[in-house]
Amino acid sequence: MPVYRLDLAYDGSGFHGYARQPDVRTVQGELEGALMRILGLRRSPATRVAGRTDAGVHARGQVVSLDLPQAVDADRLHRSLNSILSPEVVVRRLAEAPPGFDARRWARSRTYRYRILNAPLADPFLSPTSWHVAEPLSSSAMGAAAGHMVGSHDFASFCRAGPDQDTQREVSSARWDPEDELLIFEITAHAFCHQMVRSIVATCAAAGGGRLDPAEVPAILEARDRDAAHGAAPPHGLFLWSVEY
Amino acid sequence: MPVYRLDLAYDGSGFHGYARQPDVRTVQGELEGALMRILGLRRSPATRVAGRTDAGVHARGQVVSLDLPQAVDADRLHRSLNSILSPEVVVRRLAEAPPGFDARRWARSRTYRYRILNAPLADPFLSPTSWHVAEPLSSSAMGAAAGHMVGSHDFASFCRAGPDQDTQREVSSARWDPEDELLIFEITAHAFCHQMVRSIVATCAAAGGGRLDPAEVPAILEARDRDAAHGAAPPHGLFLWSVEY
Repeated sequence: MPVYRLDLAYDGSGFHGYARQPDVRTVQGELEGALMRILGLRRSPATRVAGRTDAGVHARGQVVSLDLPQAVDADRLHRSLNSILSPEVVVRRLAEAPPGFDARRWARSRTYRYRILNAPLADPFLSPTSWHVAEPLSSSAMGAAAGHMVGSHDFASFCRAGPDQDTQREVSSARWDPEDELLIFEITAHAFCHQMVRSIVATCAAAGGGRLDPAEVPAILEARDRDAAHGAAPPHGLFLWSVEY
Repeated sequence: MPVYRLDLAYDGSGFHGYARQPDVRTVQGELEGALMRILGLRRSPATRVAGRTDAGVHARGQVVSLDLPQAVDADRLHRSLNSILSPEVVVRRLAEAPPGFDARRWARSRTYRYRILNAPLADPFLSPTSWHVAEPLSSSAMGAAAGHMVGSHDFASFCRAGPDQDTQREVSSARWDPEDELLIFEITAHAFCHQMVRSIVATCAAAGGGRLDPAEVPAILEARDRDAAHGAAPPHGLFLWSVEY
């Protein structure tokens, strides 16, 4: 059974997230619908995704694996998909993958980025893809807060998870880089739990705004309690940036 | 009678242009509605705009003058406007202007930018603010075509104008700069006629794609006939970039 790898970029603003749900517009629903139309399938093909993004979250380097009953012309399918998908979703690459390829299970790590526009005024061209924070933020305090996330920790304080869910994760890097008026967060881990990046961003922003001493972050981790952290940053600043195999 | 100067940025995607029209969403309608609400006015205040942008066209440096019957606290009005305007419109600056200031008449020149994404694939994050052209374009041929626009010409071939309208304009600079996969056009003139920038961009793109020899541009100008040019580029790549006083 041939497997194809699709690399996707999408603007998540108009979608209720990646994962298919009844009666709402999702990236998976749009992608699988387009595949059914092009390939003349009666039911949705079997796809797997590297990172299920929430409503409003974007992707620059999402990866999807697609199992098909028989081989297709990958270049032709690539062009057909891009010609019928809405402009908010672009298939950047489509190629046959090694047998058994599974976009979710084969992923070694995921990298997310989060953008904060740290300026007195909003910017209409950045507002769909960044969180506007008017109060001046200290990027060095944010960097210090982020540094405490690196390593293997129980991230229960930074996860929306049920009480019995395993929230142990290993973060291999987490840093903030200023770029003009933007503060750009990049974090890499084997896997993330739900709302983990946005929760870490909100806690870093609290440190940047002086409401939290970065030295308190280890205690927040140890508390294993969502109330110990500082909420979650809005989804529209978040991008699934890349997936490493 | 005090006059105020407002500097605006807006994402034009969701607007039927700057100028107020009945029953559709316009930037002027939104701005004047917000002013009426904040200042408790019964009718729209008197405003003048430097450049009336078409449906879908953006602005980074639009300028509006506002006559008010009495003085107001400019900083407070500035904050109030930004708090109630939609995120697609931002008042970047609001200050009292010299007596008699008129954003349209006092303007010495206007500068527009146009962005082409010249890449095999579209980009969901650039598609609202650029024209995607997949065929490779020669930026030097486009620069040569643009060079012929500089100076004082009758731009009838590049204007949507009635037969008796004066289409003589003086372009002080026009150039294309590549920036990664974007080709960025910047053009400055005292004033522009309707659809002039988008028409010039389409003709430059024809030169860039090899369908027009840039040396033919002077003959297109001399024809004074819209059919001699190469149509108009789509509005969503265009920005009113700045107004010089």
